[in-house]
Amino acid sequence: MNAEPSLAEQCRDLAVRARAAAAELAAVTRDRKDRWLLRAADALLTRSGEILAANARDLDAATDLSIASRDRLKLTPSRLQATAEGLRQIASLPDPVGQVREGSVRPNGLNVQKVSVPLGVIFFLYESRPNVTVDAAGLCVKSGNAVILRGGKEALHSNTALHRILADELAACDLPRDAIQLVTTPDRDAVGHLLKMNESIDLVIPRGGESLIRRVAAEATMPVLKHYLGNCHVYVDRAADLDMAERIVINAKCQRPGVCNAMESLLVHADVAAAFVPRVGASLQARGVEVRGCEITRRYLLSAIPATEADHAAEFCDLVMSMKVVPDTESAVAHIRRYGSGHTDAIVTADLRAARYFVDRVDSSAVLVNASTRFNDGFELGLGAEIGISTDKFHARGPCGLQELTSYKYVVYGDGQVRE
Amino acid sequence: MNAEPSLAEQCRDLAVRARAAAAELAAVTRDRKDRWLLRAADALLTRSGEILAANARDLDAATDLSIASRDRLKLTPSRLQATAEGLRQIASLPDPVGQVREGSVRPNGLNVQKVSVPLGVIFFLYESRPNVTVDAAGLCVKSGNAVILRGGKEALHSNTALHRILADELAACDLPRDAIQLVTTPDRDAVGHLLKMNESIDLVIPRGGESLIRRVAAEATMPVLKHYLGNCHVYVDRAADLDMAERIVINAKCQRPGVCNAMESLLVHADVAAAFVPRVGASLQARGVEVRGCEITRRYLLSAIPATEADHAAEFCDLVMSMKVVPDTESAVAHIRRYGSGHTDAIVTADLRAARYFVDRVDSSAVLVNASTRFNDGFELGLGAEIGISTDKFHARGPCGLQELTSYKYVVYGDGQVRE
Repeated sequence: MNAEPSLAEQCRDLAVRARAAAAELAAVTRDRKDRWLLRAADALLTRSGEILAANARDLDAATDLSIASRDRLKLTPSRLQATAEGLRQIASLPDPVGQVREGSVRPNGLNVQKVSVPLGVIFFLYESRPNVTVDAAGLCVKSGNAVILRGGKEALHSNTALHRILADELAACDLPRDAIQLVTTPDRDAVGHLLKMNESIDLVIPRGGESLIRRVAAEATMPVLKHYLGNCHVYVDRAADLDMAERIVINAKCQRPGVCNAMESLLVHADVAAAFVPRVGASLQARGVEVRGCEITRRYLLSAIPATEADHAAEFCDLVMSMKVVPDTESAVAHIRRYGSGHTDAIVTADLRAARYFVDRVDSSAVLVNASTRFNDGFELGLGAEIGISTDKFHARGPCGLQELTSYKYVVYGDGQVRE
Repeated sequence: MNAEPSLAEQCRDLAVRARAAAAELAAVTRDRKDRWLLRAADALLTRSGEILAANARDLDAATDLSIASRDRLKLTPSRLQATAEGLRQIASLPDPVGQVREGSVRPNGLNVQKVSVPLGVIFFLYESRPNVTVDAAGLCVKSGNAVILRGGKEALHSNTALHRILADELAACDLPRDAIQLVTTPDRDAVGHLLKMNESIDLVIPRGGESLIRRVAAEATMPVLKHYLGNCHVYVDRAADLDMAERIVINAKCQRPGVCNAMESLLVHADVAAAFVPRVGASLQARGVEVRGCEITRRYLLSAIPATEADHAAEFCDLVMSMKVVPDTESAVAHIRRYGSGHTDAIVTADLRAARYFVDRVDSSAVLVNASTRFNDGFELGLGAEIGISTDKFHARGPCGLQELTSYKYVVYGDGQVRE
């Protein structure tokens, strides 16, 4: 006799309860969802002692983490303040549910509306930073979705405390507590079980390293919103303002080198290589950037390391980059199509023809003219908060905010129409 | 020494050529795509002898097909005329590529546009009807996508002839011939190879029986646009106009019983059961429909067969249906949530509260008020042509036309902005 339910049964129960909560949440109006967001924001601050104590336990146990990883794991009063502010910002955004995206009256008098609805149940896997627990829960609830959260094991106590507070406030607002659930078992098989439950789970979003995303994509039976890293390019055209180009390159590479929309590869038109490569090279190297250049690049920047084929394709996520001199815009675009990852690519130019050619031919989630690649971000593009940056083309591409967490249905009003 | 490339290599070559054609096609303007559509429509008629001869070969070989399947396979001059007309209609629809779906100027002056782009390469698997070859090719090319077609083996000669004509016209319009490719090998392993090529293929659309779709969904490494059958409901509310209700029920069930948006289950409010069940039952039975009813149904319709649990969940696609009497709208919605397939559901009522409740709570791709379920169709809802009806919630839901074959990218114009 085994009275204890198996892990598979526990996962199934969790998913089924999420499905029921999602059905209830789908019909909840904005005022109730926003009330929860604002109350939860307050509760994160009034109950910060509880959170920081749990976080201290995680930090105590995290003796083998790198300094950078410990810093990501650490919560502080000011980080909690920022997390609470994030929930308040989500509250201020329009309700993505119930928007009439399109509508028409058909010749036979049928009134057709395409109305946004929640996706349903979202399984969100993530690593390290515990504030992501709060961001993801806020975005999912505001968009009417139930969420199953699975954070990193090193943040388990922090996530458990945060989740308890968020769920308590759901109950206080008369919203279904099962709308936000946290997978607390350290058993990795739980993920495998949940990835099989496409009857109950509508979407999985893995946020973390490439290996996590590839594993999830391979195992999942439901759609996966993938955000791989980006091999992002800046192309400095012959007609570029070189001061602007240097500002953009430095910003794209150095402002936050470890993120997916940082520049990894710089392409320079041959006509401006002599003028631009030495100055931008010196400027990058002064900021600690290691430049790996093609043969022509190295003629103008003697200190550059020879670039290999692999360097042009690499996503360094670090103060390392590749540089290449190209004969024209066509070659720049061809290079990006070959080595790029379809994430974010920019051109610096004053030439309208070059800009149009680049914009039309580069097939990336964001294509920028005379601006830093770092702007490919939900907040910067006007989506409000984001749950990730999709490198897929299906459903949502680029930054994913509230709207990207919805689907739609057709609502049709008639007065007795039948089909001939 | 083996000079012949393996099947896997042949498939890879085909997919890589499709990818290259897609890159070219993405930048083609509407006038060129429409010229191809109109020329292809003409060529289907001027070269109809070639097509009908190939079709005759398929029909000669199809000795073991049912009469219905033979009819689906058969092409006639009038069917070719209708197929050509379909291409002309696609030509008349707006270009779904390059539409600015949203746009704004950010506080820092960045001009942000969300612009529609093709998905890329679509792998389309289908059965029997050869005219689908033409429809799918027309929709894919108009939406800027390359398509890999894999039809049923019984239609191979017909599809080969149709494909040759479509591809000839691509070449005549200076469009890449590889934009439309037909998989002609009878080896089913070719499908398996192609389903692994998510580097070259962006989307697979299986159109056929449930087993085909499930097999593709299980094997594919790229997103799958699924269109399963529908267990569609009509709920006749207490406040229904019973004449209207009868018209809608008969139309939803009998106008074309074998399709996915035909009614499979009828729910009747208890207050009108005595008045409605006998008359609608007689009317259905007079049209050859077998009614399988709940206990209360059978009190009012003695000839009804007792309905099992399985009957309520079934998609008969035939002149068979289930019927159930429910105490209220809430129970009708609960029944649909339990047994429905999220495809198409309708309410007949004059009561605004009941209509709103039904529309808000039934989570199906189309929810209709006082209209037949048969209207959940791309043409009827105003999308123009359709490539299928999605039962997914991710990316596209319900009828999928040209717009649903696109993704988008963000195009951002600045004048040197960098991120603070």
